[in-house]
Amino acid sequence: MTNETNSNVEVPTQAPRQLLSPELLNKMDAYWRAANYLSVGQIYLKDNPLLRKPLTLDDVKPRLLGHWGTTPGLNFIYVHLNRAICERNLNMMYIIGPGHGGPGIVANTYLEGSYTELYPAVEQNADGIKRLFRQFSWPLGIPSHVAPETPGSIHEGGELGYSLVHAYGAALDNPDLIVTCIVGDGESETGPLATSWHSNKFLNPATDGAVLPILHLNGYKIANPTILARIPHAELEDLMRGYGYEPFTLEGHEPHTMHEQMAQVLDTMLDRIAAIQKAAREEGNTERPRWPMLIFKTPKGWTGPKTVDGKPVEGTWRAHQVPFAELFEKPDHLRLLEEWMRSYKPQELFDEKGRFQTEFADIAPKGRHRMGMNPHANGGLLLKPLVVPSFRDFKVPVNPTSRGDKLIESTRVLGELLHSTMEANLAEKNFRVFGPDETASNRLQAVEEGVGKAWMAETLPVDELLSPTGRVMEVLSEHLCQGWLEGYLLTGRHGFFSCYEAFIHIVDSMVNQHAKWLKVTREIPWRKPIASLNYLLSSHVWRQDHNGFSHQDPGFIDHLLNKKSDIVRIYLPPDANTLLSVADHCLRSRNYINLIVAGKQPEPQWLTMDEAVQHCIAGLGIWNWASDEGEPDVVMACCGDVPTQETLAAAMQLRADVPGIKVRVVNVVDLMTLQPSSEHPHGLSDEEFDLAFTTDKPIIFAFHGYPWGIHSLTYRRHGHDNIHVRGYKEEGTTTTPFDMCVRNNIDRYQLTLDAIKRIPRLAATAENASETYYERIQKHRLYVAEYGEDLPEIRDWKWSFR
Amino acid sequence: MTNETNSNVEVPTQAPRQLLSPELLNKMDAYWRAANYLSVGQIYLKDNPLLRKPLTLDDVKPRLLGHWGTTPGLNFIYVHLNRAICERNLNMMYIIGPGHGGPGIVANTYLEGSYTELYPAVEQNADGIKRLFRQFSWPLGIPSHVAPETPGSIHEGGELGYSLVHAYGAALDNPDLIVTCIVGDGESETGPLATSWHSNKFLNPATDGAVLPILHLNGYKIANPTILARIPHAELEDLMRGYGYEPFTLEGHEPHTMHEQMAQVLDTMLDRIAAIQKAAREEGNTERPRWPMLIFKTPKGWTGPKTVDGKPVEGTWRAHQVPFAELFEKPDHLRLLEEWMRSYKPQELFDEKGRFQTEFADIAPKGRHRMGMNPHANGGLLLKPLVVPSFRDFKVPVNPTSRGDKLIESTRVLGELLHSTMEANLAEKNFRVFGPDETASNRLQAVEEGVGKAWMAETLPVDELLSPTGRVMEVLSEHLCQGWLEGYLLTGRHGFFSCYEAFIHIVDSMVNQHAKWLKVTREIPWRKPIASLNYLLSSHVWRQDHNGFSHQDPGFIDHLLNKKSDIVRIYLPPDANTLLSVADHCLRSRNYINLIVAGKQPEPQWLTMDEAVQHCIAGLGIWNWASDEGEPDVVMACCGDVPTQETLAAAMQLRADVPGIKVRVVNVVDLMTLQPSSEHPHGLSDEEFDLAFTTDKPIIFAFHGYPWGIHSLTYRRHGHDNIHVRGYKEEGTTTTPFDMCVRNNIDRYQLTLDAIKRIPRLAATAENASETYYERIQKHRLYVAEYGEDLPEIRDWKWSFR
Repeated sequence: MTNETNSNVEVPTQAPRQLLSPELLNKMDAYWRAANYLSVGQIYLKDNPLLRKPLTLDDVKPRLLGHWGTTPGLNFIYVHLNRAICERNLNMMYIIGPGHGGPGIVANTYLEGSYTELYPAVEQNADGIKRLFRQFSWPLGIPSHVAPETPGSIHEGGELGYSLVHAYGAALDNPDLIVTCIVGDGESETGPLATSWHSNKFLNPATDGAVLPILHLNGYKIANPTILARIPHAELEDLMRGYGYEPFTLEGHEPHTMHEQMAQVLDTMLDRIAAIQKAAREEGNTERPRWPMLIFKTPKGWTGPKTVDGKPVEGTWRAHQVPFAELFEKPDHLRLLEEWMRSYKPQELFDEKGRFQTEFADIAPKGRHRMGMNPHANGGLLLKPLVVPSFRDFKVPVNPTSRGDKLIESTRVLGELLHSTMEANLAEKNFRVFGPDETASNRLQAVEEGVGKAWMAETLPVDELLSPTGRVMEVLSEHLCQGWLEGYLLTGRHGFFSCYEAFIHIVDSMVNQHAKWLKVTREIPWRKPIASLNYLLSSHVWRQDHNGFSHQDPGFIDHLLNKKSDIVRIYLPPDANTLLSVADHCLRSRNYINLIVAGKQPEPQWLTMDEAVQHCIAGLGIWNWASDEGEPDVVMACCGDVPTQETLAAAMQLRADVPGIKVRVVNVVDLMTLQPSSEHPHGLSDEEFDLAFTTDKPIIFAFHGYPWGIHSLTYRRHGHDNIHVRGYKEEGTTTTPFDMCVRNNIDRYQLTLDAIKRIPRLAATAENASETYYERIQKHRLYVAEYGEDLPEIRDWKWSFR
Repeated sequence: MTNETNSNVEVPTQAPRQLLSPELLNKMDAYWRAANYLSVGQIYLKDNPLLRKPLTLDDVKPRLLGHWGTTPGLNFIYVHLNRAICERNLNMMYIIGPGHGGPGIVANTYLEGSYTELYPAVEQNADGIKRLFRQFSWPLGIPSHVAPETPGSIHEGGELGYSLVHAYGAALDNPDLIVTCIVGDGESETGPLATSWHSNKFLNPATDGAVLPILHLNGYKIANPTILARIPHAELEDLMRGYGYEPFTLEGHEPHTMHEQMAQVLDTMLDRIAAIQKAAREEGNTERPRWPMLIFKTPKGWTGPKTVDGKPVEGTWRAHQVPFAELFEKPDHLRLLEEWMRSYKPQELFDEKGRFQTEFADIAPKGRHRMGMNPHANGGLLLKPLVVPSFRDFKVPVNPTSRGDKLIESTRVLGELLHSTMEANLAEKNFRVFGPDETASNRLQAVEEGVGKAWMAETLPVDELLSPTGRVMEVLSEHLCQGWLEGYLLTGRHGFFSCYEAFIHIVDSMVNQHAKWLKVTREIPWRKPIASLNYLLSSHVWRQDHNGFSHQDPGFIDHLLNKKSDIVRIYLPPDANTLLSVADHCLRSRNYINLIVAGKQPEPQWLTMDEAVQHCIAGLGIWNWASDEGEPDVVMACCGDVPTQETLAAAMQLRADVPGIKVRVVNVVDLMTLQPSSEHPHGLSDEEFDLAFTTDKPIIFAFHGYPWGIHSLTYRRHGHDNIHVRGYKEEGTTTTPFDMCVRNNIDRYQLTLDAIKRIPRLAATAENASETYYERIQKHRLYVAEYGEDLPEIRDWKWSFR
């Protein structure tokens, strides 16, 4: 198989004239026809599955849904991968990027038997085929995309753009695995896909598996041609070479020629992969290889109707979804459908009971070699618990008589735990840490020590820690970090993603899709639980002293609040020991999306390790050491490290300003405890909630995020009308830490004033308190403008508690 | 300048030996040194701006912030663009992708005089320079990035990845404009940037301007090398050719050689652009050209300290931010800083008053030719109001005696208004419509008629509506749609973006940045208002009969609710006439982000055009024709088209089930009216709110989005504790429209039951009502499972009102 830019259809020059025996070729073609037949049937029919009677309107679904266009190409590739798996005894997964390839993959996993093993009601006979047809895109049935319900898939074909990054995530640390990834040419226009090609700079041929991308150059999207199909072929090959691949091309439509050529090009590419891996594994070659990839150009809606109502369909965007509908209005269309389906010769493909003929079925791989049954695609099957060293060993010493006296970067402490976790699992090679060039910036650099950062591109002497075997994945793309991690988790491993808080919104939509995947897999018995997706968001909204307004957004919390409560956990540990306890819990959990928000700047430390563990188990609680005994005048609640600091300072200030006042401090570390227990498994009962917050006292709540988040969590609580929330209100710039609080009215002086205003017996003093407040703020403003720093009395605040 | 793959440093073969006279070269070098000097000064100094005294620690800022690494390269490019602008009389804008180029661009716009014109306090003398230094990254000063405060910029350098797509958006329909775009090599790893290169398939050389991308191959990100700097140069050139460009390369570090070579390569590229435009404009060439681009490879931190504390700095990631700090701890560092700054010879650059020497200042462009004063970068200056034809002309006839009897696709009607708007502004060429391959799917295809879809790649006979002059922009990337539109709006034009509701989350983070830009520009007097960013989200959560769970997410509403209230408007018109009225308002508005959510499926129509206009002005209101007179037993509130339909049906069902019941229907079209007037300009007063919702009656609220959104908007309202919200609760799959409602408990029968349960006098009948409810739902379930369609009585619901 040559690889020249000046020929679209490549002809082998050295390869044997016929790789496939006529017998095998015929069987493969029959297999392909069967898959195509079952695909069309799923889209159109609810009865008469084998066309043993003439087709009537009673057999046709009332709503015709699904996408035909990409399906025959997917089916073609599948049968050829099957041949290669059998001949080479391969361990292969597939990932299908083109959104609506569902019917094709369902058909193939049915033909190979995977489907029936997982869904016994879909039997290997005419009844089973009828059920297969009927359930597709049918209420209470299955979706039209490749989805969690689809055997062998780790990839939902709904939102486009993530196939290739998922494939790379799956291949990491799976040296025996080949992940074949069908990339849609429409999908290729998305940003995430466009940068996913660069993942080859992070894949180590010695220790990782291989990804075999097949660009399915189908030509059309819903309503437009695709860009990659409408640039000169040489330009497309330049692009693929520029991405670092060795591109191969197969273009055509005549089935028998295509079968032979596909077999040859696939063998060539698999030989290349084998040679690359051999060079790396046996000959010690550490250079980044040029992995092969295939440009697979076939007509959209291949083998479907050429024209409908006088308009061309095959090879055009009209074949993208259902090539023709209106069966109830146009009798001709019913005839067209029957002709089309009979063109696959179903009578040759299925025996009298409707079972796929053994001679054809036999060419599929067996057991776990079937792509529909590859255990990597049901990662929970392979999952080994992560070894997490005792987090208590990393504790920050806190003296209960001098809380707050030492400033420590909490995330740096977490870095030590992650480093130790990395070491404890090195032999198993099932834990990686991901970050968009921010691991060190977020103070987690300890995790890089000894294990390094993955890097297969060129290195220079000045470089530090870069290595082909590095286990920290750094690239300036939140999309790649998220996608690699998803692929890694879905294939049964563990991971941790740290990111600047504001920019995690870049992957909002990917998170949605992963949350949906988790929600659905919980309802599918054969899908086993996988490790949770763990986020640390640092460099957060309150400490953007340097980067300012563009880097300030705590809204990811709100984004997750909309997800199913059995999937989402949100933690805002106020110091290092609580952070350690929370992280330990997250690393051990399953099937969740865990969000941890914690600061990287030096900050006071509050709780001893024992207190921290107790506090994290409770989720929220009264901090007695910061509270006055007995019935409080006001509850000062806080969630998040900076709000906690301001609240504790406000409690001190209140005692100084109002002798005899009784203040209660309540800290929330697990945000979901605020919800009623009926809404979230972590939610406190009303009794517990009332015990902490009271039902009748003013509650001044300082929150890390946007204030309405707290209202939406607590609106059903008894004391809700007493809650006054301060949080981020979209004010900020490059400024000092305390000034950020002032601009958003969450500073200690504002909280002090808020409390005084809301305590009935102090109402008479509110005006005085307001004046004091303005004096304090004015003093702060003048100092900051002059010196560019916070007031010394703020920077060196003298903490004192009961 | 040759363009060969096998040479990194290209030497001109045919070009004249010296393009720059020694005099000009020296002046340009002095200009560059001045910009570098002012950049370092901004990062480090608060006093002693011209080093007229020995540097002391008193002169140094307490916090050293900013990024040096990319700055000298940006300054170098700027001075060279200046030369080209003067020699060729160019109309040029710049866009700076590398995040923290702030100090360099501030320095350059100061040297050319733009800065002082816009900020007169920053005078052209030593005092002005001191102020310039001090304000940088200083509280109450300016951010460290290129930002809204920066003259000549339409691009915030905070979140990375959008420079090139903004550049293309700016160039559309500006045939005389050249947008020079500095693309960071770190930024290049992001998904949005990786696909932005393909924008050249949509830029028409005859009618659009040019984009000149300069890839700044600086080598390093915060803590890692960049991918593009660590692949072979031939591979990088392949990549650029694959993206469809003609790549040029300039690599080096010796200033004088670099000046001469940069001048030559810049002239060559500008000649290429001129030739391309001439061929298209005068010779009628309609082929997609290969636009030039430059790979500009210079050391990170060029001209800065070579080593610090024995470690290499220039040319490494250590130069990325502040090359050295600890000035107060290490006396040697103060000396290093002084030497570094004096290496630029400030005494030669500024006169005794501190004014930039005239002989150097004179080589900059003048007036609006200065990049800091290009009016396109302050788009409001150029903005002409959009001509919006009377939306009433497109009204759907609604007969008040038979409301709901006709099913109409509301967005299709909107398509007609957009088409007419497109035609009315064709001569002005200042309106475009954007969509990720979904314009027709969202039923807006009328807008394509006559004007076509922009397409510069290959076309085939089967294609429809594709044209180099097309004005509808379609590409399968929400990032590109959003970025193009932002660039288009920021340069003073109008636009409209339609998208599937769920997938608009792909651009959550871009929307954040645009909202922040608008918020800040409102506070900058010289920034003039621009047209609003208008979204239509269709194919929404309630009608994913085909695509199912992966396409269901109404959370973009919540995302916008967190933004500043003076920027965000959210509309959920329940039918076509309200949609027309809302769209008209949005198209005419300024400086907002307008969100419209509306269905594309055939749906009942409720309001006459006069009623619709009144309703949209009020924002929410009682629908008298659907309500009983007098004091109601229950308020049935609704927001969104499907919830409105279910609510109206529930009101009918309630009257059937409970004779004599008094139901009030309140519809909300402008979501922000629910907020208190103190929180949002559209918010109703409490009196108005209470008049519609009552303060003491149960309120059953059917909402399009996640239910807590309504609680967070209304928690301060008197009747809040009476509000029971139904909305999307993350349940769904491929199913029928009514079944989607049932799965999320927002269906008419559930709403009926909700009302009965909450009306005190009906409490005794609640158990019966529950039984009736389960019977109805059971009937529905059985029918759907059997027939794959909703019950005929649901599909053909007979609407009847008072």
